[in-house]
Amino acid sequence: MTGMSPARRLQGVKSSPVRDLLALTQRPEVISFAGGLPAPELFDVDGWSDAFQKAAGHRPNLQYAPTEGDPVLRELLAQRMTARGIPTEPADLLVTTGSQQALTLVTTALVEPGDVVAVEEPTYLAALQCFQLAGARLVPIASDEHGAVPSSLADVLERERPSLVYLVPTFANPSGGTLTAARRQEIAALAAAHDVWLVEDDPYGELRYQGEPVPALTSYGEKVLYLGTLSKIGAPGLRIGWLRAPRELMPAAVIAKQAADLHTSTIDQAAAAVYLANVDMNAHVRGLCAAYRERRDTMVAALPATVPAGTTWSDPDGGMFVWLRLPGAVDTARLLKKALAHNVAFVPGAPFFATNPDRATFRLSFTTNTPDEISEGMRRLAATLA
Amino acid sequence: MTGMSPARRLQGVKSSPVRDLLALTQRPEVISFAGGLPAPELFDVDGWSDAFQKAAGHRPNLQYAPTEGDPVLRELLAQRMTARGIPTEPADLLVTTGSQQALTLVTTALVEPGDVVAVEEPTYLAALQCFQLAGARLVPIASDEHGAVPSSLADVLERERPSLVYLVPTFANPSGGTLTAARRQEIAALAAAHDVWLVEDDPYGELRYQGEPVPALTSYGEKVLYLGTLSKIGAPGLRIGWLRAPRELMPAAVIAKQAADLHTSTIDQAAAAVYLANVDMNAHVRGLCAAYRERRDTMVAALPATVPAGTTWSDPDGGMFVWLRLPGAVDTARLLKKALAHNVAFVPGAPFFATNPDRATFRLSFTTNTPDEISEGMRRLAATLA
Repeated sequence: MTGMSPARRLQGVKSSPVRDLLALTQRPEVISFAGGLPAPELFDVDGWSDAFQKAAGHRPNLQYAPTEGDPVLRELLAQRMTARGIPTEPADLLVTTGSQQALTLVTTALVEPGDVVAVEEPTYLAALQCFQLAGARLVPIASDEHGAVPSSLADVLERERPSLVYLVPTFANPSGGTLTAARRQEIAALAAAHDVWLVEDDPYGELRYQGEPVPALTSYGEKVLYLGTLSKIGAPGLRIGWLRAPRELMPAAVIAKQAADLHTSTIDQAAAAVYLANVDMNAHVRGLCAAYRERRDTMVAALPATVPAGTTWSDPDGGMFVWLRLPGAVDTARLLKKALAHNVAFVPGAPFFATNPDRATFRLSFTTNTPDEISEGMRRLAATLA
Repeated sequence: MTGMSPARRLQGVKSSPVRDLLALTQRPEVISFAGGLPAPELFDVDGWSDAFQKAAGHRPNLQYAPTEGDPVLRELLAQRMTARGIPTEPADLLVTTGSQQALTLVTTALVEPGDVVAVEEPTYLAALQCFQLAGARLVPIASDEHGAVPSSLADVLERERPSLVYLVPTFANPSGGTLTAARRQEIAALAAAHDVWLVEDDPYGELRYQGEPVPALTSYGEKVLYLGTLSKIGAPGLRIGWLRAPRELMPAAVIAKQAADLHTSTIDQAAAAVYLANVDMNAHVRGLCAAYRERRDTMVAALPATVPAGTTWSDPDGGMFVWLRLPGAVDTARLLKKALAHNVAFVPGAPFFATNPDRATFRLSFTTNTPDEISEGMRRLAATLA
């Protein structure tokens, strides 16, 4: 890729198909399982409105602010991570404009055009975009229902010498899978042995509906960069995320952040700090989990009557997504047009693959619709697949 | 620079000296002319607090949003640019997380490691950082009190074939200078003839205290990318900026923006839209100009009694900065320590130079302090220089 002009490289990076699709699926009569959006009716509008009024009414919050982030917010986020089993000091954290920015800053700091980045296949497509934009060569790690396969990672590390390994270890997008504790230990050890940075992208980790929590990958080793966000447990409109990184990497990340946008919105950071200080976030997350569990159960229970025999699907313990594979040589991108004629939408699976797309796969999101809407949407999907 | 690892390149890009200094100059007893901060006491706190309460109380503003930006905000910004003599449609604009992000997106889209970026010397140091981080080689364009010299630009275009030319044509940071209308025409024609992109970074354009307005560089040609911001006329804490670009470049900028942070804070954008719709921004800017004009006049009037004979300085028609050069072989970085002992601060000039620093230069900002504070600060500066 080195030597390819940025304009040409950008032409090669397609606009996110999810976003392009969202435009098509926003007709009000469509029940969309396509987006990766949290349920808006579960946003704590009163809590956030109060927090923003307080934040914007405090004069210093209208001014420029330190690149590293609001000191109070960093302290509260560090406490929250520590309470979740990842001992964290405020100085370990850089507040970012959503965790998407944290991923881009890590990429800026560690990936050169032509470098190799190793990813699960399938994986989060905006991460694929980010690495492609940096001119990286993507190499897949095999994965199954328990996440990335350590022996495949070992092989990739040996053969390809990646600069970075990107994983969504918990309730992955799009697969819904979660890396087992044993594999986390093995993968952290492999990274340490090969002196390579792992990225643990963890937007969904707190959204568990069944089964026992698994410790964060970050807690198994020193070579892990953790990306966190308030988008799924608070609200995505704020664009508040964070990078937790070893001190040695922080100066480079801070310089990349300065060049990116000087600092994240002073007001959004202050509002997040007010909110975290005043609201019982754990209780709010329990409420989200109760609602999302019912939606997940509704969708999964409807699947046998919805999809043709021979279809396989994930049974996610948390997060937002069910991942499916239809039998035979089906192209779900074609199927989407038929689905839209039935006023239901999903995301075809191909764009989530870094290398060899499996066109019979697709992703359903269960978070944005109510159980009744999910039931009706699944009836429409059944009619599409009939 | 190609082939240098990102980590090494980041080590080469120093953290912004202004920001490092700001940390040192925040003792309350220091009168600081160092920062580039708008006056916080002139922020319209009530207006912004109202706007944020309304914005955060509207449920859709807590959700993900289009990458291009809030449609209402883009419409209002387009109207505002059109009223300032730059005919603009909403589709010409991409909302960014401050204009710093607009600069980074343009760099991502157009600059490859090893490419040449041409800049005025001295110029905005976070722009220099941004280009260095992208692995660009910086080539200076000569400038005088009327901004960049067209014959020098012509020479650079011919000899160095830059990918990008970066200018702050109006009330430049740090020089305070403004490019004349005749030079704007000439420079826009040169860019068209050489098919090279000009960046017009315009954070200060509306802050004019004397003299007649000069049309934006953007109005003289098609090869100009305009960077705008609410930071200096509204409030920087919002991080609301924008890129105005020809339609051919917009898809690449949007993809770079998606990878950077998906979109700018939905709430901050909505609050900015509420504010622009409800408040007479032109009246607010007139108020800012009246206050800043008095501060500028106070500082410039005090200069002859403050600095040694042989010192030269700019007499800016607007913006935030006076730029000075002391006689003899002085290093203003050393002088700063002495100034801090007198409880006054400025920014040494060297970091604003891309290539050969003139260490006898320094920058004074007149916006952050009241006239009385400026008078006292200038007395302390006189004692420093005595």
